[in-house]
Amino acid sequence: MAGKKEEDERLRETRLGGEPVFEGRLLHVYRDRVRLPDGRESTREYIRHPGASAVVLLDGEGRVLLERQWRYPLSRAFWEIPAGKLDGAEDPLVCAKRELSEETGWNAEGWKSLGFMCPGIGYSNEVIHLFLARASGAGRRHLDPGEFLDLEWMPFGDAVRMALEGGIEDSKTIAALFRAERVIATGKSR
Amino acid sequence: MAGKKEEDERLRETRLGGEPVFEGRLLHVYRDRVRLPDGRESTREYIRHPGASAVVLLDGEGRVLLERQWRYPLSRAFWEIPAGKLDGAEDPLVCAKRELSEETGWNAEGWKSLGFMCPGIGYSNEVIHLFLARASGAGRRHLDPGEFLDLEWMPFGDAVRMALEGGIEDSKTIAALFRAERVIATGKSR
Repeated sequence: MAGKKEEDERLRETRLGGEPVFEGRLLHVYRDRVRLPDGRESTREYIRHPGASAVVLLDGEGRVLLERQWRYPLSRAFWEIPAGKLDGAEDPLVCAKRELSEETGWNAEGWKSLGFMCPGIGYSNEVIHLFLARASGAGRRHLDPGEFLDLEWMPFGDAVRMALEGGIEDSKTIAALFRAERVIATGKSR
Repeated sequence: MAGKKEEDERLRETRLGGEPVFEGRLLHVYRDRVRLPDGRESTREYIRHPGASAVVLLDGEGRVLLERQWRYPLSRAFWEIPAGKLDGAEDPLVCAKRELSEETGWNAEGWKSLGFMCPGIGYSNEVIHLFLARASGAGRRHLDPGEFLDLEWMPFGDAVRMALEGGIEDSKTIAALFRAERVIATGKSR
Protein backbone atom coordinates (compact mmCIF):
# COMPACT_ATOMS: atom_id res chain seq x y z
CA MET A 1 0.00 0.00 0.00
CA ALA A 2 1.32 3.38 -0.97
CA GLY A 3 1.47 5.68 2.01
CA LYS A 4 1.59 2.89 4.57
CA LYS A 5 5.34 2.39 4.64
CA GLU A 6 6.05 4.88 7.39
CA GLU A 7 3.21 3.74 9.61
CA ASP A 8 4.26 0.12 9.06
CA GLU A 9 7.69 0.86 10.50
CA ARG A 10 6.01 1.47 13.86
CA LEU A 11 4.70 -2.12 13.74
CA ARG A 12 7.90 -3.83 12.58
CA GLU A 13 9.28 -6.86 14.42
CA THR A 14 13.03 -7.27 13.96
CA ARG A 15 14.82 -10.62 13.87
CA LEU A 16 17.48 -11.07 16.57
CA GLY A 17 18.30 -14.71 15.85
CA GLY A 18 16.71 -18.09 15.46
CA GLU A 19 16.95 -21.72 14.59
CA PRO A 20 15.07 -24.56 12.95
CA VAL A 21 13.09 -26.47 15.58
CA PHE A 22 11.68 -29.16 13.30
CA GLU A 23 12.97 -30.28 9.91
CA GLY A 24 10.47 -32.75 8.51
CA ARG A 25 9.83 -34.24 5.10
CA LEU A 26 7.16 -31.61 4.42
CA LEU A 27 7.37 -29.03 7.19
CA HIS A 28 10.25 -26.75 8.11
CA VAL A 29 9.51 -25.04 11.41
CA TYR A 30 11.56 -22.17 12.82
CA ARG A 31 11.65 -20.28 16.08
CA ASP A 32 13.14 -16.80 15.97
CA ARG A 33 13.85 -14.29 18.70
CA VAL A 34 12.46 -10.89 17.74
CA ARG A 35 12.52 -7.29 18.93
CA LEU A 36 8.94 -6.00 19.32
CA PRO A 37 7.89 -2.41 18.49
CA ASP A 38 7.99 -1.49 22.20
CA GLY A 39 11.59 -2.70 22.52
CA ARG A 40 10.85 -5.92 24.37
CA GLU A 41 11.91 -9.35 23.14
CA SER A 42 9.62 -12.21 22.17
CA THR A 43 9.70 -15.38 20.07
CA ARG A 44 7.97 -16.16 16.78
CA GLU A 45 7.34 -19.73 15.57
CA TYR A 46 6.56 -20.22 11.90
CA ILE A 47 6.80 -22.45 8.87
CA ARG A 48 9.14 -21.69 5.97
CA HIS A 49 7.44 -22.69 2.73
CA PRO A 50 8.80 -22.43 -0.85
CA GLY A 51 5.57 -20.85 -2.18
CA ALA A 52 3.07 -22.32 -4.61
CA SER A 53 1.00 -21.73 -7.73
CA ALA A 54 -2.67 -22.55 -8.36
CA VAL A 55 -4.79 -22.46 -11.53
CA VAL A 56 -8.42 -21.71 -12.39
CA LEU A 57 -8.71 -23.77 -15.61
CA LEU A 58 -11.80 -23.11 -17.75
CA ASP A 59 -13.07 -25.15 -20.68
CA GLY A 60 -15.12 -23.96 -23.67
CA GLU A 61 -18.39 -24.76 -21.92
CA GLY A 62 -18.02 -22.44 -18.94
CA ARG A 63 -16.79 -25.12 -16.59
CA VAL A 64 -13.87 -25.06 -14.13
CA LEU A 65 -11.61 -28.03 -13.39
CA LEU A 66 -11.68 -29.02 -9.72
CA GLU A 67 -9.81 -31.68 -7.82
CA ARG A 68 -11.30 -33.72 -5.04
CA GLN A 69 -8.48 -34.52 -2.61
CA TRP A 70 -8.24 -36.01 0.87
CA ARG A 71 -6.66 -33.58 3.30
CA TYR A 72 -5.32 -35.51 6.25
CA PRO A 73 -5.03 -32.64 8.78
CA LEU A 74 -8.81 -32.11 8.56
CA SER A 75 -9.73 -35.79 7.97
CA ARG A 76 -11.94 -35.06 4.97
CA ALA A 77 -11.88 -34.43 1.24
CA PHE A 78 -11.97 -30.92 -0.24
CA TRP A 79 -12.75 -29.34 -3.61
CA GLU A 80 -9.65 -27.50 -4.79
CA ILE A 81 -8.20 -25.96 -7.89
CA PRO A 82 -4.99 -27.64 -9.17
CA ALA A 83 -1.97 -26.35 -7.25
CA GLY A 84 1.52 -27.25 -6.21
CA LYS A 85 4.72 -26.04 -4.64
CA LEU A 86 7.42 -24.06 -6.40
CA ASP A 87 10.46 -26.16 -7.20
CA GLY A 88 13.35 -24.09 -5.79
CA ALA A 89 13.54 -20.72 -7.53
CA GLU A 90 11.01 -21.78 -10.16
CA ASP A 91 8.98 -19.05 -11.86
CA PRO A 92 5.37 -19.15 -10.57
CA LEU A 93 3.88 -19.39 -14.08
CA VAL A 94 6.21 -22.25 -15.01
CA CYS A 95 5.19 -23.97 -11.77
CA ALA A 96 1.50 -23.46 -12.54
CA LYS A 97 1.87 -25.04 -16.00
CA ARG A 98 3.92 -27.94 -14.63
CA GLU A 99 1.58 -28.72 -11.75
CA LEU A 100 -1.50 -28.46 -13.96
CA SER A 101 0.00 -30.93 -16.39
CA GLU A 102 1.25 -33.32 -13.70
CA GLU A 103 -1.94 -33.38 -11.62
CA THR A 104 -4.56 -33.19 -14.36
CA GLY A 105 -2.89 -33.95 -17.70
CA TRP A 106 -4.25 -30.67 -19.13
CA ASN A 107 -2.37 -28.07 -21.10
CA ALA A 108 -3.66 -24.51 -21.25
CA GLU A 109 -3.38 -21.19 -23.07
CA GLY A 110 -4.38 -17.56 -22.50
CA TRP A 111 -2.72 -17.44 -19.09
CA LYS A 112 -3.61 -14.45 -16.90
CA SER A 113 -2.32 -13.56 -13.44
CA LEU A 114 -4.86 -13.35 -10.61
CA GLY A 115 -2.22 -11.98 -8.25
CA PHE A 116 -1.24 -13.78 -5.09
CA MET A 117 -2.64 -14.57 -1.65
CA CYS A 118 -1.14 -15.70 1.65
CA PRO A 119 -3.03 -18.56 3.29
CA GLY A 120 -1.72 -18.42 6.86
CA ILE A 121 0.07 -15.17 7.65
CA GLY A 122 0.15 -15.88 11.40
CA TYR A 123 2.45 -18.89 11.17
CA SER A 124 3.57 -19.52 7.59
CA ASN A 125 5.45 -17.50 4.98
CA GLU A 126 3.60 -19.31 2.16
CA VAL A 127 2.60 -17.20 -0.86
CA ILE A 128 0.29 -18.74 -3.47
CA HIS A 129 0.36 -17.28 -6.99
CA LEU A 130 -3.02 -17.53 -8.71
CA PHE A 131 -3.66 -17.89 -12.44
CA LEU A 132 -6.56 -18.13 -14.88
CA ALA A 133 -6.22 -20.13 -18.13
CA ARG A 134 -8.21 -21.90 -20.85
CA ALA A 135 -7.85 -25.64 -21.39
CA SER A 136 -6.18 -26.35 -24.75
CA GLY A 137 -5.66 -30.09 -24.76
CA ALA A 138 -5.49 -33.13 -22.56
CA GLY A 139 -2.52 -35.43 -22.09
CA ARG A 140 -1.60 -37.92 -19.40
CA ARG A 141 -1.28 -36.99 -15.78
CA HIS A 142 1.72 -37.94 -13.64
CA LEU A 143 0.84 -37.90 -9.96
CA ASP A 144 3.54 -37.90 -7.30
CA PRO A 145 3.86 -41.11 -5.25
CA GLY A 146 1.28 -41.03 -2.47
CA GLU A 147 -0.87 -38.46 -4.34
CA PHE A 148 -4.49 -39.44 -5.01
CA LEU A 149 -7.12 -37.13 -6.43
CA ASP A 150 -10.31 -37.16 -8.51
CA LEU A 151 -10.99 -34.59 -11.23
CA GLU A 152 -14.31 -32.96 -12.07
CA TRP A 153 -15.41 -30.26 -14.51
CA MET A 154 -17.96 -28.15 -12.62
CA PRO A 155 -20.05 -25.26 -14.04
CA PHE A 156 -18.16 -22.12 -13.05
CA GLY A 157 -21.26 -20.50 -11.54
CA ASP A 158 -21.85 -23.53 -9.33
CA ALA A 159 -18.28 -23.34 -8.04
CA VAL A 160 -18.62 -19.62 -7.22
CA ARG A 161 -21.92 -20.29 -5.46
CA MET A 162 -20.27 -23.02 -3.35
CA ALA A 163 -17.39 -20.68 -2.47
CA LEU A 164 -20.03 -18.21 -1.27
CA GLU A 165 -22.61 -20.45 0.37
CA GLY A 166 -20.65 -23.53 1.42
CA GLY A 167 -19.08 -26.62 -0.10
CA ILE A 168 -15.84 -24.92 -1.14
CA GLU A 169 -13.82 -23.99 1.94
CA ASP A 170 -10.20 -24.12 0.73
CA SER A 171 -8.72 -20.63 0.97
CA LYS A 172 -6.73 -20.56 -2.30
CA THR A 173 -9.74 -21.91 -4.21
CA ILE A 174 -12.10 -19.30 -2.73
CA ALA A 175 -9.76 -16.40 -3.52
CA ALA A 176 -8.97 -17.62 -7.04
CA LEU A 177 -12.62 -18.25 -8.00
CA PHE A 178 -13.72 -14.78 -6.89
CA ARG A 179 -10.87 -13.04 -8.67
CA ALA A 180 -11.45 -15.15 -11.80
CA GLU A 181 -15.16 -14.27 -11.74
CA ARG A 182 -14.34 -10.56 -11.84
CA VAL A 183 -11.78 -10.96 -14.64
CA ILE A 184 -14.28 -13.00 -16.68
CA ALA A 185 -17.09 -10.49 -16.05
CA THR A 186 -15.05 -7.37 -16.80
CA GLY A 187 -12.39 -8.67 -19.16
CA LYS A 188 -10.01 -6.70 -16.95
CA SER A 189 -6.78 -8.42 -16.00
CA ARG A 190 -3.84 -7.25 -13.93
CA MET B 1 -21.12 -32.35 -0.65
CA ALA B 2 -24.09 -34.62 -1.01
CA GLY B 3 -23.26 -37.61 -3.19
CA LYS B 4 -19.53 -37.36 -2.62
CA LYS B 5 -19.32 -39.52 0.51
CA GLU B 6 -18.82 -42.82 -1.30
CA GLU B 7 -16.26 -41.46 -3.74
CA ASP B 8 -14.42 -39.77 -0.88
CA GLU B 9 -13.92 -43.14 0.81
CA ARG B 10 -11.66 -44.12 -2.09
CA LEU B 11 -9.41 -41.17 -1.22
CA ARG B 12 -9.35 -41.64 2.56
CA GLU B 13 -6.04 -41.73 4.46
CA THR B 14 -6.29 -43.67 7.72
CA ARG B 15 -4.28 -42.83 10.83
CA LEU B 16 -2.03 -45.66 12.05
CA GLY B 17 -0.28 -43.76 14.83
CA GLY B 18 1.64 -40.61 15.48
CA GLU B 19 3.29 -38.23 17.86
CA PRO B 20 3.93 -34.57 18.52
CA VAL B 21 7.25 -33.55 16.96
CA PHE B 22 7.29 -29.93 18.14
CA GLU B 23 5.36 -28.38 21.02
CA GLY B 24 5.97 -24.65 20.91
CA ARG B 25 4.34 -21.65 22.51
CA LEU B 26 2.24 -21.10 19.38
CA LEU B 27 2.70 -24.12 17.13
CA HIS B 28 1.83 -27.75 17.83
CA VAL B 29 3.30 -29.93 15.11
CA TYR B 30 2.46 -33.61 14.67
CA ARG B 31 3.75 -36.42 12.50
CA ASP B 32 1.36 -39.31 11.89
CA ARG B 33 1.81 -42.62 10.09
CA VAL B 34 -1.05 -43.16 7.67
CA ARG B 35 -2.44 -45.87 5.40
CA LEU B 36 -2.84 -44.52 1.85
CA PRO B 37 -5.72 -45.48 -0.48
CA ASP B 38 -3.46 -47.96 -2.31
CA GLY B 39 -2.59 -49.74 0.96
CA ARG B 40 0.90 -48.36 1.32
CA GLU B 41 2.11 -46.45 4.36
CA SER B 42 3.30 -42.86 4.46
CA THR B 43 3.72 -40.02 6.94
CA ARG B 44 1.79 -36.77 7.30
CA GLU B 45 3.17 -33.72 9.10
CA TYR B 46 0.71 -31.05 10.19
CA ILE B 47 -0.21 -28.38 12.70
CA ARG B 48 -3.00 -28.83 15.21
CA HIS B 49 -4.78 -25.52 15.68
CA PRO B 50 -7.74 -24.70 17.98
CA GLY B 51 -9.65 -22.86 15.22
CA ALA B 52 -10.46 -19.17 15.00
CA SER B 53 -13.15 -16.57 14.32
CA ALA B 54 -12.97 -13.44 12.18
CA VAL B 55 -15.37 -10.51 11.74
CA VAL B 56 -16.36 -8.17 8.90
CA LEU B 57 -17.50 -5.16 10.99
CA LEU B 58 -19.44 -2.45 9.12
CA ASP B 59 -20.33 1.03 10.32
CA GLY B 60 -23.32 3.19 9.31
CA GLU B 61 -21.32 4.87 6.52
CA GLY B 62 -20.54 1.76 4.48
CA ARG B 63 -17.05 1.30 5.86
CA VAL B 64 -15.34 -1.86 7.12
CA LEU B 65 -12.95 -1.99 10.09
CA LEU B 66 -9.50 -3.26 9.09
CA GLU B 67 -6.42 -3.91 11.16
CA ARG B 68 -2.92 -3.21 9.98
CA GLN B 69 -0.66 -5.80 11.61
CA TRP B 70 2.95 -6.88 11.20
CA ARG B 71 3.20 -10.54 10.23
CA TYR B 72 6.64 -11.79 11.09
CA PRO B 73 6.73 -14.91 8.85
CA LEU B 74 6.38 -12.67 5.77
CA SER B 75 8.32 -9.69 7.18
CA ARG B 76 5.63 -7.17 6.28
CA ALA B 77 2.37 -5.64 7.46
CA PHE B 78 -1.02 -6.84 6.16
CA TRP B 79 -4.57 -5.52 6.06
CA GLU B 80 -6.78 -7.96 7.96
CA ILE B 81 -10.21 -8.17 9.50
CA PRO B 82 -10.23 -8.62 13.30
CA ALA B 83 -9.72 -12.28 14.22
CA GLY B 84 -8.48 -14.53 16.95
CA LYS B 85 -8.18 -18.08 18.18
CA LEU B 86 -10.91 -20.05 19.92
CA ASP B 87 -10.28 -20.38 23.64
CA GLY B 88 -10.63 -24.12 24.26
CA ALA B 89 -14.14 -25.30 23.34
CA GLU B 90 -15.38 -21.71 22.96
CA ASP B 91 -18.35 -21.13 20.66
CA PRO B 92 -17.16 -19.39 17.45
CA LEU B 93 -19.64 -16.51 17.79
CA VAL B 94 -18.61 -15.91 21.41
CA CYS B 95 -14.98 -15.91 20.25
CA ALA B 96 -15.77 -13.44 17.45
CA LYS B 97 -17.41 -10.99 19.88
CA ARG B 98 -14.60 -11.36 22.42
CA GLU B 99 -11.78 -10.90 19.90
CA LEU B 100 -13.51 -7.94 18.26
CA SER B 101 -13.85 -6.24 21.62
CA GLU B 102 -10.31 -7.05 22.76
CA GLU B 103 -8.56 -6.04 19.52
CA THR B 104 -10.67 -3.06 18.50
CA GLY B 105 -12.82 -1.99 21.47
CA TRP B 106 -15.95 -2.25 19.29
CA ASN B 107 -19.22 -3.97 20.17
CA ALA B 108 -21.56 -5.08 17.42
CA GLU B 109 -25.09 -6.23 16.64
CA GLY B 110 -26.96 -7.97 13.81
CA TRP B 111 -24.47 -10.84 13.69
CA LYS B 112 -24.68 -13.10 10.62
CA SER B 113 -22.64 -16.19 9.82
CA LEU B 114 -20.51 -16.14 6.66
CA GLY B 115 -19.68 -19.83 7.07
CA PHE B 116 -16.15 -21.05 7.51
CA MET B 117 -12.95 -21.46 5.51
CA CYS B 118 -9.75 -23.46 5.94
CA PRO B 119 -6.59 -21.45 5.33
CA GLY B 120 -3.99 -24.20 4.88
CA ILE B 121 -5.53 -27.63 4.27
CA GLY B 122 -2.21 -29.19 3.25
CA TYR B 123 -0.54 -28.81 6.63
CA SER B 124 -2.93 -27.33 9.20
CA ASN B 125 -6.30 -28.34 10.62
CA GLU B 126 -7.22 -24.70 11.22
CA VAL B 127 -10.85 -23.72 10.56
CA ILE B 128 -11.77 -20.01 10.59
CA HIS B 129 -15.41 -19.10 11.27
CA LEU B 130 -16.44 -15.90 9.47
CA PHE B 131 -19.05 -13.37 10.62
CA LEU B 132 -20.65 -10.13 9.48
CA ALA B 133 -21.87 -7.56 12.02
CA ARG B 134 -22.76 -3.87 12.45
CA ALA B 135 -20.78 -1.68 14.85
CA SER B 136 -22.94 -0.62 17.79
CA GLY B 137 -20.58 1.19 20.11
CA ALA B 138 -16.94 1.69 20.96
CA GLY B 139 -15.24 0.88 24.23
CA ARG B 140 -11.62 0.35 25.17
CA ARG B 141 -9.46 -2.26 23.50
CA HIS B 142 -7.32 -4.72 25.46
CA LEU B 143 -4.49 -6.07 23.34
CA ASP B 144 -2.57 -9.16 24.37
CA PRO B 145 1.05 -8.58 25.46
CA GLY B 146 3.23 -8.39 22.35
CA GLU B 147 0.24 -7.55 20.11
CA PHE B 148 0.51 -4.32 18.11
CA LEU B 149 -1.98 -3.23 15.46
CA ASP B 150 -3.41 -0.11 13.85
CA LEU B 151 -7.12 0.26 13.08
CA GLU B 152 -8.67 1.89 10.02
CA TRP B 153 -12.23 2.30 8.74
CA MET B 154 -12.05 1.75 4.96
CA PRO B 155 -14.88 2.17 2.45
CA PHE B 156 -16.22 -1.36 1.90
CA GLY B 157 -16.00 -1.06 -1.88
CA ASP B 158 -12.32 -0.07 -1.65
CA ALA B 159 -11.59 -3.14 0.47
CA VAL B 160 -13.34 -5.47 -2.00
CA ARG B 161 -11.43 -3.86 -4.87
CA MET B 162 -8.14 -4.44 -3.02
CA ALA B 163 -9.07 -8.08 -2.37
CA LEU B 164 -9.63 -8.43 -6.13
CA GLU B 165 -6.85 -6.32 -7.57
CA GLY B 166 -4.14 -6.34 -4.92
CA GLY B 167 -3.37 -4.81 -1.53
CA ILE B 168 -5.39 -7.33 0.47
CA GLU B 169 -3.72 -10.73 0.36
CA ASP B 170 -4.70 -12.37 3.66
CA SER B 171 -6.82 -15.44 2.93
CA LYS B 172 -9.44 -15.06 5.67
CA THR B 173 -9.93 -11.40 4.81
CA ILE B 174 -10.37 -12.12 1.09
CA ALA B 175 -12.92 -14.89 1.72
CA ALA B 176 -14.88 -12.90 4.30
CA LEU B 177 -15.06 -9.71 2.20
CA PHE B 178 -16.39 -11.56 -0.86
CA ARG B 179 -18.98 -13.46 1.15
CA ALA B 180 -20.00 -10.29 2.99
CA GLU B 181 -20.37 -8.43 -0.32
CA ARG B 182 -22.86 -11.01 -1.55
CA VAL B 183 -24.85 -11.00 1.69
CA ILE B 184 -25.01 -7.18 1.63
CA ALA B 185 -26.01 -7.14 -2.06
CA THR B 186 -28.70 -9.83 -1.81
CA GLY B 187 -29.76 -9.59 1.84
CA LYS B 188 -29.45 -13.36 1.78
CA SER B 189 -27.76 -14.95 4.79
CA ARG B 190 -27.07 -18.58 5.61
